[in-house]
Amino acid sequence: MRAWILSIGNELLIGRTVNTNAAWLARKLTLLGYDVRREVTVPDEEDEEAEAFRDAVRRGVELVVSTGGLGPTFDDKTSESLAKALGRQYDLNDAALELVKRRFAAAGLELTQPRLKQAMMPRGAEPIPNPVGTAPGIWVREGSSIIIAMPGVPAEMQGMFEQYVEPRLREVGPRLSFAEESFTVRGVPEADAAPIIERGMRMGRRVYVKSHPKGHEVGAPYLEIHVYASAESEGEAREEVARVAGYLREELRKAGGEVE
Amino acid sequence: MRAWILSIGNELLIGRTVNTNAAWLARKLTLLGYDVRREVTVPDEEDEEAEAFRDAVRRGVELVVSTGGLGPTFDDKTSESLAKALGRQYDLNDAALELVKRRFAAAGLELTQPRLKQAMMPRGAEPIPNPVGTAPGIWVREGSSIIIAMPGVPAEMQGMFEQYVEPRLREVGPRLSFAEESFTVRGVPEADAAPIIERGMRMGRRVYVKSHPKGHEVGAPYLEIHVYASAESEGEAREEVARVAGYLREELRKAGGEVE
Repeated sequence: MRAWILSIGNELLIGRTVNTNAAWLARKLTLLGYDVRREVTVPDEEDEEAEAFRDAVRRGVELVVSTGGLGPTFDDKTSESLAKALGRQYDLNDAALELVKRRFAAAGLELTQPRLKQAMMPRGAEPIPNPVGTAPGIWVREGSSIIIAMPGVPAEMQGMFEQYVEPRLREVGPRLSFAEESFTVRGVPEADAAPIIERGMRMGRRVYVKSHPKGHEVGAPYLEIHVYASAESEGEAREEVARVAGYLREELRKAGGEVE
Repeated sequence: MRAWILSIGNELLIGRTVNTNAAWLARKLTLLGYDVRREVTVPDEEDEEAEAFRDAVRRGVELVVSTGGLGPTFDDKTSESLAKALGRQYDLNDAALELVKRRFAAAGLELTQPRLKQAMMPRGAEPIPNPVGTAPGIWVREGSSIIIAMPGVPAEMQGMFEQYVEPRLREVGPRLSFAEESFTVRGVPEADAAPIIERGMRMGRRVYVKSHPKGHEVGAPYLEIHVYASAESEGEAREEVARVAGYLREELRKAGGEVE
């Protein structure tokens, strides 16, 4: 099952914020067995956001997870953009209103218009409780896609994902397990390791090998080799990784490498 | 002038690596006066890479900067994907071959087939010297777009950008300056700051204001307000930011905020 991660926010596009949310989610989704195919970052603009959602849905991407744009300010447009992308009405969601009311009542704060906006959702969507902040997330299905919109504040996003999204994706998701292993090789330039790595990759269908140069190739060749695989069970995934990593270690040693 | 940043690499999509390259480049391009409209991350797959390049060129995006996929291994496919996207021949580039030869000769290394691959480019492209590693970057024009492909290793990418790309973009780029200012406000919930911020935003055409909640809205409202603007000169950009930030500080104080 494919997944896309959609990040919304001008702060990412002016380089003010490093997108740690995308990396965190990519990791979580990969471990759940999803094949994260694309990450897209767009500005806080309705047309750009709607286009990105529409593009994913049109391709039938099984899971689309967005972060950002759910707050109370004028440039928080994710919910409305999503409604537009899906061609649905954008109304006050009763269940979301309950969640928002409860949060503000508990804090003794009034339910003003900008706050009420956080309960507006595409018709047919379900709110996801926010264990940390006030804006609920959004869970909505369209064709073969599940679309999940979460806040951009990392603590809110992570809390929401771990408490509400992850358990549910374990039920409806791909049911694949993921395993990985890394080791380092000194003394084999990346260009010489390349054909060995390619042979290792071909040993399995759901296995991937990637080399990351840690020293510069000229002078001090020092590579990190990362082997990862998905399989029906964790045991199988681990076995597959061990098999390929074992082969690579042996071949890289034969090529004169010092394997650690 | 619009810019897109294209990041290539499975390590980003499995959440193994946080995409600091995109943030670094977004910052640099913004300071050069570009309007970074989108960041896209795709896997090390020719079709996905080519589609992303083609999409940017089709929309006439003035600058497309990619990182990753220029190394010697089998899954380094950026150059070939770019040739495919542009519908150009993918051949050995004489100038690139000279650069690559020199690097390997200096290190007393043989020019093997995987190494030679680093000198293959779309026809009509110019190589960009790599001051740190062996793989040259690529500079190519197509219609109204300039496309620049750089390595994914941060030190190589940054060295190449600062030494060769940035000076050239200063000549052909947007000639706009960028300025910014941040301050914090305690005691005004984000929802109450929203209409004030919206009014501040409307004060100028190339000014943007964004609030970032630092504490949770319920309980301890603590916001960071970030004001930024581009203008023909640095002085103008700074004035514009000062004017809007001054207005916001005053209004947020009136709303009961403690401005720092």
